[in-house]
Amino acid sequence: MFNFKDIINSYKDEIDNELMNIYNDGPNLLYNPINHVLIGGKRLRPILCMLTTNSFGGSKRDSLICSISIELLHIFSLVHDDIMDNDKIRHGRNTIHDKWNIPIGILAGDAILSLAFKHLNDLDNDIKKKFNSALIAICEGQALDIEYETKKNITLNEYLSMIDLKTSYMIGLCAELGATISGLDKEKVFKMKNFGSLIGRAFQIQDDLFEVTLSEEIMGKSLNSDLSLNKKTFLMIKANEKCSSDLNRIIENIKTDKPEKVKYEYLNLLQKNNIINETKIYINKIFSDAENILDSLNLEDKKLYEFMNYIRKRGC
Amino acid sequence: MFNFKDIINSYKDEIDNELMNIYNDGPNLLYNPINHVLIGGKRLRPILCMLTTNSFGGSKRDSLICSISIELLHIFSLVHDDIMDNDKIRHGRNTIHDKWNIPIGILAGDAILSLAFKHLNDLDNDIKKKFNSALIAICEGQALDIEYETKKNITLNEYLSMIDLKTSYMIGLCAELGATISGLDKEKVFKMKNFGSLIGRAFQIQDDLFEVTLSEEIMGKSLNSDLSLNKKTFLMIKANEKCSSDLNRIIENIKTDKPEKVKYEYLNLLQKNNIINETKIYINKIFSDAENILDSLNLEDKKLYEFMNYIRKRGC
Repeated sequence: MFNFKDIINSYKDEIDNELMNIYNDGPNLLYNPINHVLIGGKRLRPILCMLTTNSFGGSKRDSLICSISIELLHIFSLVHDDIMDNDKIRHGRNTIHDKWNIPIGILAGDAILSLAFKHLNDLDNDIKKKFNSALIAICEGQALDIEYETKKNITLNEYLSMIDLKTSYMIGLCAELGATISGLDKEKVFKMKNFGSLIGRAFQIQDDLFEVTLSEEIMGKSLNSDLSLNKKTFLMIKANEKCSSDLNRIIENIKTDKPEKVKYEYLNLLQKNNIINETKIYINKIFSDAENILDSLNLEDKKLYEFMNYIRKRGC
Repeated sequence: MFNFKDIINSYKDEIDNELMNIYNDGPNLLYNPINHVLIGGKRLRPILCMLTTNSFGGSKRDSLICSISIELLHIFSLVHDDIMDNDKIRHGRNTIHDKWNIPIGILAGDAILSLAFKHLNDLDNDIKKKFNSALIAICEGQALDIEYETKKNITLNEYLSMIDLKTSYMIGLCAELGATISGLDKEKVFKMKNFGSLIGRAFQIQDDLFEVTLSEEIMGKSLNSDLSLNKKTFLMIKANEKCSSDLNRIIENIKTDKPEKVKYEYLNLLQKNNIINETKIYINKIFSDAENILDSLNLEDKKLYEFMNYIRKRGC
């Protein structure tokens, strides 16, 4: 019998070790910030890639290579997004632009992306193409996220399309590449991509939910900063549909009211309108769709189910 | 008989046309800034790639693909460098971060880089590897450039290594990819890479020279901003070797003295110490080395010589 936690911890260690040796030589102004930001993070994306390859019997070596490139792609996007959103803390450490400055943040992000591409050098073209598509998707998702900050009425579908580009696409890529490395046929690769993408969508909406239901210490960011930036979340879109005048009143008072009062009133509004509950039901429906995909693949190995449940239960 | 100017103009038109159709769909916050920054530029890098392929009989289609990716790589680096250096004008137009804001500048740069990679999707792995190496070189060169701003005594060799990464590597890549597409053997590809790299080195030192000898209107940037940023140039390193106390006095007075006075005194110092003349001799020596490489390849076609002389004579 495998112990799921042991397996993902062992994958995490392998990934961490590889990352610690990814950039050992180069100018100090790249070496220091890159190695600063490579520490921390749960490595969920590469772990999904490794688990998928393991479940379908693909090459572990190739999977580890893809996993490192995916994690570097993820870190690149965090480094640049944190500049764009002016976030100062990530994984409990100062962001690069906060510890150094914006130019170094931009440059280190670029260099991390270049390492992600270089690491894929010897793999198949098919994998590189999929990787390139993910990079464009991330940029487009981030552009929509910024665009939506200035718009009031974003529909649920617009929101879902945005997070599918910004967040779900890369998680879909993890499962897609794991399946590709394992030599699955096109239909199964597509199914695994969708599986990962659904996990990513659920993951993002969970984050939206946790932002209101968990404390700032656990989330590592303030709810009110997102509210005042007018960042769109699943819950805010629901609130805008159901009780926009009450929501507007809370947002209007954000600069004068105490943060605790804003948070209390917002949570109260969401509960009164059954939005917390509806969000949980929606998340469960996504996980259930993802589970159906796994069922259709008749997997003997249950690690991908375990991974899904691991994501599903986080924050509980 | 070919007319060299007609050929490069026809290449430039083809490149411009391709670039105008590179990103026609996507979020407004990417579509607008990307298409804003794709206009302008002399397209010297892609033209060198096309000329090299033409001289050695390689596939024009593949060369055009590489050329577009190289120009996108170049534009990406300009967009991010302009944020880092807070430059507001490029090719006579507002930089993206000035017309929009820094987040859009970062994001548009990232997206342009992603388009560069996507455009190479169907070419050989060898070409992609070379492209990846160039991206890392550019980042490292830019890191050294920033690092050197805070250091006083940079040697000529350190300076040359920095510009070789930041500027020459990409111009070397143009000739290298043109030669690779044409199926030249390793030794000849390496020669062409060195040829391009020498052209790049001469090009950068010419820029350093023009900054002092040409007017700001022609150069599109102020000498004094570079001096006050303590940006290293070939001439400044020479001045620091030969007459550091006089140079320090000029730099110390930069905030209080009139810009014309600073420029006059700096130019005077350089002339008095024979630095302008030595710089010209140094540039000519690089072009002469580049010419020797072409000679060793026994080229019947003279377009690469013409290209070299076209670069050599710019600003005269």
